[in-house]
Amino acid sequence: MIEIDFEKGNGLVPVVVQDADTGEVLMVAYMNRDAWLKTRETGKATYWSRSRNELWVKGETSGHIQHIEEILVDCDYDTVLLKVRQEGGAACHTGYRSCFYRRVVNDNTEVIGELIFKPEDVYK
Amino acid sequence: MIEIDFEKGNGLVPVVVQDADTGEVLMVAYMNRDAWLKTRETGKATYWSRSRNELWVKGETSGHIQHIEEILVDCDYDTVLLKVRQEGGAACHTGYRSCFYRRVVNDNTEVIGELIFKPEDVYK
Repeated sequence: MIEIDFEKGNGLVPVVVQDADTGEVLMVAYMNRDAWLKTRETGKATYWSRSRNELWVKGETSGHIQHIEEILVDCDYDTVLLKVRQEGGAACHTGYRSCFYRRVVNDNTEVIGELIFKPEDVYK
Repeated sequence: MIEIDFEKGNGLVPVVVQDADTGEVLMVAYMNRDAWLKTRETGKATYWSRSRNELWVKGETSGHIQHIEEILVDCDYDTVLLKVRQEGGAACHTGYRSCFYRRVVNDNTEVIGELIFKPEDVYK
């Protein structure tokens, strides 16, 4: 029986989302217990939106569903790693494949990510 | 000028640590502003230990330093991704290469990670 430690983070655990094929880290989101159970039940990544304070089936609006290939848990059971198949090829609401599309160079950032869609075409 | 959003997480941001060569996710830790600045200054991953409430130079005790190869920031500037070269080959205090050494199978977990060292040989 798996018991995720939701207490340490006041009911939430961080979730690292990785592309199952390439290993690219696509995003980090959060789950509460309901999101965890719904993800496991449906096979689609479901998070807790900290800004909207509600369950958030990733891709519900954009169609960019994350299908679960594998779930890993860390040594302390307080962080989850999802390996997913990303529908639409992009995880970030900005249209980039990954939310981590900028790298730090000196004291600035430069874009290194790939733009997959234009947000205005998806979020109407 | 990069401004990381430390406010959203009460002074801390989650940090995903990825092996620069293999892309394996090694661990998730947290940084406050001091840890962020020290990491950038030294090129060695430095975190904020939530359990000990102090700055934590990863590998200070174990020798398993994480040398920074690349730093990425996410779309909201509230999560950091480090690509590192892991000295000693293991990031987890349990001796596994990655803290994510267990995968979820049905309602249990099974170990899929590689054990690199015995904790009793390292933490004396």
